[in-house]
Formats: sequence, C-alpha cells, structure tokens
Amino acid sequence: MGQAMALERNEAGIETVTGILAQRFADRCQTGAAIREQHGHTTTWIANQPPDAVVFPENTDEVAGIVATCAEHGVPVIAFGTGTSLEGHVNAPAGGICIDMSRMNKVLAVHAGDLDCVVQPGVTREDLNTYLRDQGLFFPIDPGANASLGGMAATRASGTNAVRYGTMKDNVIALEAVMADGTVIRTAQRAKKTSAGYDLTRLLVGSEGTLGIITEITLRLHGIPEAMSAARCSFPTVDAACQAAMATIQFGIPVARMELIDAQSVRAVNAYSNLSLPETPLLLLEFHGSDAAVREQAEAFGDLAGDVGGEEFAFTTSPEERTKLWQARHDFYWAMLQMRPGAKGLATDVCVPISRLADAVTRAEARAAELGLLAPTVGHVGDGNFHTTPMIDMNDADEVARAESFVGWLNDMAISMDGTCTGEHGIGQGKRAYLQRELGPATRYMAAVKSALDPQGILNPGKIL
Amino acid sequence: MGQAMALERNEAGIETVTGILAQRFADRCQTGAAIREQHGHTTTWIANQPPDAVVFPENTDEVAGIVATCAEHGVPVIAFGTGTSLEGHVNAPAGGICIDMSRMNKVLAVHAGDLDCVVQPGVTREDLNTYLRDQGLFFPIDPGANASLGGMAATRASGTNAVRYGTMKDNVIALEAVMADGTVIRTAQRAKKTSAGYDLTRLLVGSEGTLGIITEITLRLHGIPEAMSAARCSFPTVDAACQAAMATIQFGIPVARMELIDAQSVRAVNAYSNLSLPETPLLLLEFHGSDAAVREQAEAFGDLAGDVGGEEFAFTTSPEERTKLWQARHDFYWAMLQMRPGAKGLATDVCVPISRLADAVTRAEARAAELGLLAPTVGHVGDGNFHTTPMIDMNDADEVARAESFVGWLNDMAISMDGTCTGEHGIGQGKRAYLQRELGPATRYMAAVKSALDPQGILNPGKIL
Repeated sequence: MGQAMALERNEAGIETVTGILAQRFADRCQTGAAIREQHGHTTTWIANQPPDAVVFPENTDEVAGIVATCAEHGVPVIAFGTGTSLEGHVNAPAGGICIDMSRMNKVLAVHAGDLDCVVQPGVTREDLNTYLRDQGLFFPIDPGANASLGGMAATRASGTNAVRYGTMKDNVIALEAVMADGTVIRTAQRAKKTSAGYDLTRLLVGSEGTLGIITEITLRLHGIPEAMSAARCSFPTVDAACQAAMATIQFGIPVARMELIDAQSVRAVNAYSNLSLPETPLLLLEFHGSDAAVREQAEAFGDLAGDVGGEEFAFTTSPEERTKLWQARHDFYWAMLQMRPGAKGLATDVCVPISRLADAVTRAEARAAELGLLAPTVGHVGDGNFHTTPMIDMNDADEVARAESFVGWLNDMAISMDGTCTGEHGIGQGKRAYLQRELGPATRYMAAVKSALDPQGILNPGKIL
Repeated sequence: MGQAMALERNEAGIETVTGILAQRFADRCQTGAAIREQHGHTTTWIANQPPDAVVFPENTDEVAGIVATCAEHGVPVIAFGTGTSLEGHVNAPAGGICIDMSRMNKVLAVHAGDLDCVVQPGVTREDLNTYLRDQGLFFPIDPGANASLGGMAATRASGTNAVRYGTMKDNVIALEAVMADGTVIRTAQRAKKTSAGYDLTRLLVGSEGTLGIITEITLRLHGIPEAMSAARCSFPTVDAACQAAMATIQFGIPVARMELIDAQSVRAVNAYSNLSLPETPLLLLEFHGSDAAVREQAEAFGDLAGDVGGEEFAFTTSPEERTKLWQARHDFYWAMLQMRPGAKGLATDVCVPISRLADAVTRAEARAAELGLLAPTVGHVGDGNFHTTPMIDMNDADEVARAESFVGWLNDMAISMDGTCTGEHGIGQGKRAYLQRELGPATRYMAAVKSALDPQGILNPGKIL
C-alpha cells in the first residue's frame, strides 16, 4: 500500500528513444542523474524513480514528436509541470522519457470579453495572474504551490478558492492534448458550454497524464472582485467550527474561501508568528463582491458563527488588515515545519460530505494522538476537504509505519463516510489501493478507457490504476 | 445530413429478448404500436423509429437484468425519460428495447446539510422541486421542458439558469449506472469534490445513454434564495443587447438568468399577450441573493444597459411583478406557435463565445430572412447560447429543404466562430455530422471510448458517433 509498483523496463526501446531524442533536441534532452532525479520528485515516502531522460519541448509539434517516437518503441512518457504533485505522479517506475513543460510557458491568448484565456501547460498560476492583472482579470484556482496549469489540470487540482470558484474541472473549457499515438486533438471549442459528444475535456482533467499529454488549456477567467473582505472567528470545538461552516454554505453566503485551522495548528502559529489567538479551532474566511456585498456577507457569517459559540469574530475590508487577519493561514506551513524541525510533513487529503466533517476531523485528531503522531489539520471546510499532516522523522521506521497506518485508516474512514480518498491531490502511485476500495467495480471501466486510449500503456504507467 | 442512420436489425435476438422480457415483466413490457411509436418520439424532421418493446422497470436490479439479457443476445437498449429530447435521441434505428424510467421516480434521499440529494432517473425536475420546497432547497437547472433528471444528465442539459448555476455537468455529483455488460457501478462518492481517478461521472453526463444507463443520480442542491429580482430592458439592436449582456458578465454581476428575445419574437409576444413592448431586442434578467444584493444587482445592470442605449429599463423584487415582467419569455413558446398556426418549430441550438454572439444572432436573422424563413430567436445570452427556430410547414418540401439548409449553415457558422453545434440539446442522430466537423480528430477517441465500454454497440446505437 502506498508503494510504487515495479514495472518492467523496456531497455532496448529506452536506449533507442533516448538516442533519437538526444539527437533531435540536443541540449534540450538531458540525461544527467541530478536532473533525472529531480524529475522523479516525490514528497511522500514513495521512493524516487527517475526517468531515463528529460526533454524540454517548446511547442505541441515537438511534444507530438516525442510521444510518437516513444509510441513506436513502446517507451513510457511522463509529463512534468513543476513537480509539486504529492502522490508520486511524476515517478518513472518503468523508466522512460519525462517531458518537462517549463519551456511551454506562453499565454497564447486572453479573450477579456469572453472571460477566458488560452495557455501552454507550463504557465504557472502565479505567472498567469501576474499577466492578467492589468486587465482586471484573475484565475482563481489556488492549490497553494505555484503549480503549472497543465499539472493542475492533470490532477484536477483545487484549493482554498474551490468553495466559490470550483475546481479545475469547472474552470477548464477545452484542452489540446497529444494522445498516446502522437495525434493532437482538441477536446472542445471555446464556447462556455456544450453538449457536443463525450466530455473528453473532463476525462483528461484529472487523468494525471495517463490518457493524453495536455499541450494547451483554455481556462475560464473571472473579473477581479470590486472588493474583498476577510473574517476570522475562533470556536470552542471543531464541531462548532464545522457547524458554522455548514450554516454558511446552507444560507448561500457566497464565501470565496473558508479555512479551518485546528487547535494544534493555532498553537504552532502563535508560537511561530508571535500571535495570541485563542488556541481553539479557527475559521478564516474571505468574501468577494461589491463593497456592500462583502460587508454584508462577513456580517452574516459573524451572526451564524455567534449562534454556535464563535468567539473573537473580526472582519475587515482593508487589504493590509486582510493579510494580518489571515496570517495564521499564510504562516501555517512554516509554523508546522517549526513544530518539529527536521521532520517531514506527510500531506493527506480526504474529502467527506460536509455534514460528516466535524466527526471526521475530530476522529482524525484522536487517532493521530492515539498513534503518538504530531499531526496538525487544516481544511477547505466549505468543500468538506481537509489535510491532516503527520510530521514524521523519516529515519524512525516505527514512526513511519504508524504514519502509514494513519493514512490508511484516514482514507478508509473517509470512504466509509461516503467521502473520497482524495479531494484534490489525485491518486498517483500512493492512493491506487484506496481508489479500488472507494470505487470498486467502476475502476474496471476506468481501466477499459485507459486501454482504449493508450493500448500500449506508455502514458505515465503505474499511476491511478 | 440530419437523417437517421439505417442500422441492421438483429431480428432473432430481438424476438428472443422481447419474449424473455414479456415473461419477466408481464404488463410492464409493452409492444403495442402506439406506445412504441410514442417512445421513438422525435421533434425534428428525423423519422420516428420505434423500439420493439417498452419495459417499465422499478429498480436498478431490473434495469441491470434487462441490459444483461440484451447484452447476451446483442440487442439494442435505449433509455427513455420523458421524451423531450430534440435530436432523435430516443429513436431505435436498429429496433430493440426501450427502458422507460417513469416508474423509477423516487427521491431516495435529501441531505439538506450537504446540499445534495439522491434521485432515481425518472424523477422530473418539477417533481424534485416540489419535493424540496418545504426544506428551503431547490435544484436550479431548467431546460424549459419538465424533463426527467436522468434524461437531463444524459444530454448534459442546462437552460436559462446555467449562467449562474452551471449545467448538468456542474450539478451531478455522482451517478449509479448500468454498464453495457449489465454491471452496476457508482462513478463517485458523495463528497463535493474528488480527484479519485477518471471522471466517469462527467463521461456519462452527456453520453446520451450510449455508454451506460443512469439508474441513480446524486445532485447538488441550492438554498432557495432569500430574494429574487427581475429586470427587463429593450435595446435598439441585437448588438446593443449583447453588449449589455457581456458587460454584465464581465463586471461579475451574478445574474441568475439573462434571456435575449429578438424583435420578431417581441412582436409575436405583443400580439399574443396583448403587450406593448418596444418591438426591438429585449433582455430579461433575474437575480438571486439577499434583499439588498438583488436590488443592487438589478440597478447595476440598469446602469450598464443605459450605457449601451438600453431603454424602458424596469425592475422589481415583488413575485407577482416578476412574473409580469417576464411574461414575454413565459409566453414566447405559445406566441411563436401562434405566428404561423400549424407550422412546426424546428429548434436549433448553437453556442458561441459571448464576444461573437451579436454577430452570430444578427447573421442568423439575416440568413433566415434571405431563405424566406420565419425564424424567431431566443438566447441564454450569458452563455452565448441561442435558439433560432424556423417555423416550418412540414408539407412544403422546399421549405423543409430551406430549413435544413439553414440549420446546416447555422451550425457551421457557430463552429467557425470557435463555438459549438450544440450548447445543450446534444448530438443524438441529428447532429452527428456537425460533431465530426466541430471536433474532427477527437471523435476518433470518443469512438475508442465507446468501443471500450460498449464493445457490442448495444447502448443507444446510431447516436452521437
């Protein structure tokens, strides 16, 4: 469980393809150990499995050429964005060619009137937002890391804004992709909605590079809101915080972000950032809209929070104050590392129906304590998605084993609550066993789709299924 | 073009299966001509192609049993909701068994805290909303007809509310479906978001019964808004109306509905309903939110409309006044029929990037006039989706030919504008040729998916591909 599968290497094919690509791409084809290892990057306990070569194409034709060559010789192809995926997505268990998209980093078109843009897969979300700012537009999906948009599409990423703006599945209008035989397709036109045939767009979104290599993305954009407000409120228990979150959603308050930070994490942030927040569960919120609307929404939340025991409610519409109010969230990652210097944070990612969230988080906290794990939790609570992150000494085999056991228990609990083993990180190598447990018979049809679109199994082998 | 394909009938198989089902379902298996013809219902010029038998299952097991029997004997299976699809979706070009879902009409669960519900496919959207009303919840997707939710999922339906609430793809959380071999799968759990494997939910949504038969649907719900406002504004030209629509979207005014009614249609409605609206293009809008917000939004729209020449702007927050303000839209269908008694309305359905909408509608009006066709237009303009509906004397072969020519021209124009040949009606039999023109190489991969999931091709043959 959670381990990489050992797949058979096609040594002859790999040698041939590496030779061809080295000649075709010159210094844009790299085979040094360091660069290969960096492209097999993984942030879990899954061992690094580097590809045999890393190629840096500059356009779709070059990608199609690489895939066609690999197809001819039966060699694996792994697309690589920024390497911020978390479940061994970019590992190369059977070796093969990594396609690094970092040179395909152009914004190809912005259609301000249509609120969409067309980008190459190597554009990062921060680069895109910098590019768009002058036009009063932004792309909302924010998974935390400055990931590439191709990688975000491939893993169906989301993050803190999803409660309002949806996930990548909701914000990708169309894709251009290179299929396993080297053919370039477009999955849809640029119209905002369509009923034209099977939804290949959504089939490729979240397919983790196993069905096609994304080479162009048409994304939905949003106008930068006229105003934003931020709010913060402490709660006596996780349950009370979740009650407030649920009420906010039920009352239709169009919250843009709503983050839960558990008591343990608040303690860490207080220590790290020299704050004096009550060391109880905390909700942080953000609202987008007109001046009047964001004020009204923050106040409406304050009322709902008060009803369930919320305390120290604060809100602001000033940008500087906003940053201060949210400091606990911004500093969370660093505070967490500081909790146990040298430890590695093992990010988990489950998502349950919001009515089960309080129970799920409370049980996760108790289970981690039982196992003697330090495991702070933050959650995108508007979606029922939360991350409990055991901070592990990777040299302590027993602790690693307890963390593995915790992760397995957590995924099973989420599944038993009609939830999922991954809200946003994807399956990769690490969660294949849980996907089977979660969707059982459906995975057979996923496998049929995989075989149909990639009969040789060269696209990112050993992932998802 | 637009014609049904003649597929080969498996006479022996059909006879065997009909015999088995007649025995198994007794009077819930019907073979009378009238009922068969009604289930091959089609609203275009495509000829009626009735199935050989209509079966009325009451649960998933019965559906699975029917499909398994049909699979064993290689006999087509066509799912039927309410028969309101528009492109020959329920025709049976190779005969076979129609599964009528009208007895699978139970709301299985409402999870108010999670804003979702689970329904059988035969529940209609109006039935669901009646069921939900007491709980302060509603399901927003409104394609006009009181369609079944299974049918709406299968065609990726949307309608007037899509600009705010999205389409079926955005509001289906999970499906239970019977696959071509009779296996029952669930595509996802009930969590609000997931990155667990291929998105079989979205693959089945819009697959028009060709990849699986939907037997249960988990739907996203919304709280009934605290307040609604309606607005109406006339414009000198289609271009001005579209400018106002575009500005509304760009400024992020969260309009719930925004309908364009062209001058010709306004004339018809004036005549039919004894109104005195300016006989120029009209926009009708609806806003959902808090009392303050819906007032603010309607006024903000009024300002934008005024900037581009909008006239006779009116808005209201009272329910009775709202109905009156929208009367032109409510009466549109009947007014249209009244324009030319005895004529048949041939609904078209294209969707273009909103920046191309004014051009597309204006050209469609001119082209229809050139061809001597009476063809009113209404549009869900927030999405760039519009319906120009030639009113045709079906006994006049020349007029039918001109209408066919118009439909072809319109689809090609939309495709040439980076739009789609169907925003919400689906491909069915009528638009297969346009799907090929629109997505070309991608349709090969759609065909590969179809072959993988339905190797015998028994699920709704002759549709989409």
